[in-house]
Amino acid sequence: MEVGFLGLGIMGKAMSMNLLKHGFKVTVWNRTLSKCDELVEHGASVCESPAEVIKKCKYTIAMLSDPCAALSVVFDKGGVLEQICEGKGYIDMSTVDAETSLKINEAITGKGGWFVEGPVSGSKKPAEDGQLIILAAGDKALFEESIPVFDVLGKRSFFLGQVGNGAKMKLIVNMIMGSMMNAFSEGLVLADKSGLSSDTLLDILDLGAMTNPMFKGKGPSMNKSSYPPAFPLKHQQKDMRLALALGDENAVSMPVAAAANEAFKKARSLGLGDLDFSAVIEAVKFSRE
Amino acid sequence: MEVGFLGLGIMGKAMSMNLLKHGFKVTVWNRTLSKCDELVEHGASVCESPAEVIKKCKYTIAMLSDPCAALSVVFDKGGVLEQICEGKGYIDMSTVDAETSLKINEAITGKGGWFVEGPVSGSKKPAEDGQLIILAAGDKALFEESIPVFDVLGKRSFFLGQVGNGAKMKLIVNMIMGSMMNAFSEGLVLADKSGLSSDTLLDILDLGAMTNPMFKGKGPSMNKSSYPPAFPLKHQQKDMRLALALGDENAVSMPVAAAANEAFKKARSLGLGDLDFSAVIEAVKFSRE
Amino acid sequence: MEVGFLGLGIMGKAMSMNLLKHGFKVTVWNRTLSKCDELVEHGASVCESPAEVIKKCKYTIAMLSDPCAALSVVFDKGGVLEQICEGKGYIDMSTVDAETSLKINEAITGKGGWFVEGPVSGSKKPAEDGQLIILAAGDKALFEESIPVFDVLGKRSFFLGQVGNGAKMKLIVNMIMGSMMNAFSEGLVLADKSGLSSDTLLDILDLGAMTNPMFKGKGPSMNKSSYPPAFPLKHQQKDMRLALALGDENAVSMPVAAAANEAFKKARSLGLGDLDFSAVIEAVKFSRE
Amino acid sequence: MEVGFLGLGIMGKAMSMNLLKHGFKVTVWNRTLSKCDELVEHGASVCESPAEVIKKCKYTIAMLSDPCAALSVVFDKGGVLEQICEGKGYIDMSTVDAETSLKINEAITGKGGWFVEGPVSGSKKPAEDGQLIILAAGDKALFEESIPVFDVLGKRSFFLGQVGNGAKMKLIVNMIMGSMMNAFSEGLVLADKSGLSSDTLLDILDLGAMTNPMFKGKGPSMNKSSYPPAFPLKHQQKDMRLALALGDENAVSMPVAAAANEAFKKARSLGLGDLDFSAVIEAVKFSRE
Repeated sequence: MEVGFLGLGIMGKAMSMNLLKHGFKVTVWNRTLSKCDELVEHGASVCESPAEVIKKCKYTIAMLSDPCAALSVVFDKGGVLEQICEGKGYIDMSTVDAETSLKINEAITGKGGWFVEGPVSGSKKPAEDGQLIILAAGDKALFEESIPVFDVLGKRSFFLGQVGNGAKMKLIVNMIMGSMMNAFSEGLVLADKSGLSSDTLLDILDLGAMTNPMFKGKGPSMNKSSYPPAFPLKHQQKDMRLALALGDENAVSMPVAAAANEAFKKARSLGLGDLDFSAVIEAVKFSRE
Repeated sequence: MEVGFLGLGIMGKAMSMNLLKHGFKVTVWNRTLSKCDELVEHGASVCESPAEVIKKCKYTIAMLSDPCAALSVVFDKGGVLEQICEGKGYIDMSTVDAETSLKINEAITGKGGWFVEGPVSGSKKPAEDGQLIILAAGDKALFEESIPVFDVLGKRSFFLGQVGNGAKMKLIVNMIMGSMMNAFSEGLVLADKSGLSSDTLLDILDLGAMTNPMFKGKGPSMNKSSYPPAFPLKHQQKDMRLALALGDENAVSMPVAAAANEAFKKARSLGLGDLDFSAVIEAVKFSRE
Repeated sequence: MEVGFLGLGIMGKAMSMNLLKHGFKVTVWNRTLSKCDELVEHGASVCESPAEVIKKCKYTIAMLSDPCAALSVVFDKGGVLEQICEGKGYIDMSTVDAETSLKINEAITGKGGWFVEGPVSGSKKPAEDGQLIILAAGDKALFEESIPVFDVLGKRSFFLGQVGNGAKMKLIVNMIMGSMMNAFSEGLVLADKSGLSSDTLLDILDLGAMTNPMFKGKGPSMNKSSYPPAFPLKHQQKDMRLALALGDENAVSMPVAAAANEAFKKARSLGLGDLDFSAVIEAVKFSRE
Repeated sequence: MEVGFLGLGIMGKAMSMNLLKHGFKVTVWNRTLSKCDELVEHGASVCESPAEVIKKCKYTIAMLSDPCAALSVVFDKGGVLEQICEGKGYIDMSTVDAETSLKINEAITGKGGWFVEGPVSGSKKPAEDGQLIILAAGDKALFEESIPVFDVLGKRSFFLGQVGNGAKMKLIVNMIMGSMMNAFSEGLVLADKSGLSSDTLLDILDLGAMTNPMFKGKGPSMNKSSYPPAFPLKHQQKDMRLALALGDENAVSMPVAAAANEAFKKARSLGLGDLDFSAVIEAVKFSRE
């Protein structure tokens, strides 16, 4: 199977390498073309524009850094739109908002092309190991034809219906994560201020029904006030805000998420926006006593 | 090793049976004495009052239903206080508030006895399997001498310092649990009202960094609006309230736990107090649209 | 002094009538021209398009129903932009968001015109009595030249700096109002459920330091579960959301406003969006006990 | 009419002086007897114990500093209980919790005496001016016989039913006050951080439907970060906590009051407990940006 691949950042590189390893023919493009070299050594072909990749391949995957880059690769000169047509599929796995996804979908399908959005859950390591979780939505037929690709990239892929649903599902997952992180932070601080050991609390949580990789992974560094940014707090807060907006649209009252969002905002006002989102514990801790 | 055991409810029976199986000599007492019969068949001795058990055994464990029963067994006629003295240890594993624990501690140590509180995390099944988590506090020497007992009853035991700390730690664990349950509930409802499948959300959560036995165990029944009471909502709300009171004492502001507590209160006002605490999702769901 | 007046809805009619009474020469326009008749009887002139009004008058006031109408009157064929030029002032007193206001400002000033936004606080009665509160922002010179007009229309006018500040100030005022309404609602319900009279609570509040026209005006009907829509709940909730978004931009954590916003959302989900915003008390009241 | 008066602190002195001025015969007692001198100069008699006052007078009023003093005056040697009997009325106007009030009521009525609790709203100035608001509850007949006294001390007195209701009503009033203060604080900070003048916001609020003496009185000093303690923040937070507990008893979910309570707790953790409760604005303001 032959696939195009647009965008060779940390994620895109790991993903396209995986495809090569599993016997796919891969044609890559990246804004900075030199980043393609390593892939070429492993057997990839290169094109000089997104349009050329589309022209050459029946299926093209994109993994771009943000909504702005995702739009640019489609709409700019030499972009996807110039060559997309009936019989060709475009799978955008970048993390973008539902609105951006809908705009790209409209343009692609307007030219007769097929479109699937497929944001992923998981970062560098799962990308390298082919262990991503893929939240796909859009054209069902294209999704099904893409299953061999998704099977290589992820441990599981979901088809969620119409375009926008992938983005929405990701927001909801991140909203639960943000509220859980606050629940966890309040517990750790309460233990500490009540004269108990917050390290022991970690051990106890780890033995019970709430044990989860996030508490296990981040708890020990939180107890050391260390927050190396895996997922920056300001992005977590933005996702909380967008999830609350989704609740607003659908008249779902979510007081716990709203309280968590305000805690993340307080953390931002304390200058912690670029640290890991677990730094929200600093907003709970802060006192002068 | 010989131990006394007061209280043969669901938990106490499983625990004393476990001790017998592991070769301990066990002397039991229960308010309704007939409940001792099964234990006797497995080799236990019986006494007719808590005082007699204390007189006979160096170490006595209690596992009673509530603070009221815990106090009665110590202070009433024929109670623990009549025989406790220097050289004897009393280990109360009932779930009681810190105040009750402190009152018992004062009385026991006033007579020269040793006291450890040891509330447990885990219910019937872990009790039978010797897989409880024991949150012990009080007399360090008694705790250490009790380790052979705790090793049979639990998969792990913690020594948390002064009397009251066991009760406090349990409240904190339950507070995190209550906030997490609200985070989870809001996410499930938001998915549903946004046109996504809340069953798919469960699958996605299960594959990621937040996967935990509680979401896995309760999610499917929550999506079916079924809440068989494992831990009644009214008790969860009481623990949230007490944890918030602990925060009040120590000037820890916990806006997420406070919002979760109000959601549990709303659920109580909807008549859901006797269902499982996961029924809080009904307070999120409720609408007329 | 001669002024143009665009828009003769409930507010615009009362305001332009007031100007006539105070000796201003007024030239009016309304989308449905027949609505101008009553004003003409009292001495107003009429034009057939916004552009004609602008051409005729040095100063023109607009009072339109929503952002859409405000934009249309400026940008459509026969609109303000066709005739606005250096030496002419345009004062938009409609309630619009900051973004709409900025867009109009840019267009007007791009043609050399002067622009002031001036949303008002107060509804029909204060408009008739010339008792509005005017939250003006934009061109300072135009504001100062407009003072004779504002003195007739309002009891007080404020100049708040750059365009957008009028809209923002109105949001903040409404945010405080929404949180206060929730505080009030919770108190009334708590009194009732605690076996106290919520009517007596109104009397007590009225005698103390918190007495205010809103509690006095709305309390008695709230106690009768009557919510005739003076300010619809869905608009109040929208303003809470926008004020929270303003807080988000400026990293101001506002947990009480966030909780109030979620209560308004719950009220919307209960089908109360078109009632007065005081109907949020129904979300507090709701229970099955 | 002859009345006894126990407790001559700031409030008690002003109140008993008022009674003398209005022609009542007053017999006073105070723990530190020398504090009675000024009253004696104005015509009061003195007794050496609460019991003696009760013996001498048909009606006795108490105005004591806290629940502890209120209990001591009744139950200690030389206390009210020694002389209270059928035909005598005891009116405790101290601010105490419902539980204390119920305990006193039980003791007084157990001896055949009549009891009314009558906490007041208002501080030194209203006490001097006879402008207190009296929240009475208990024995209806005694309340009615006391009206001439209440008419001198207050501008309005309410009879709220059974003992405890006076205390509860006061908590509810203070809960609304605490939430309103947070709503106000969030608005002032948001104005400031959004580049608007928080002093102008005060002016605007003062002209609209939310104008109230509290905003007017405290706003200007809050904008100057000045919080001279009229009602200490730690007491306001305690009243929020007790009002939330009352909500808990009655299954009333109050998310806005809960969020306000957490803000007051955060303020306490910032060391602001002894300042005026308006200092909660500092918890909103606090940031490092």
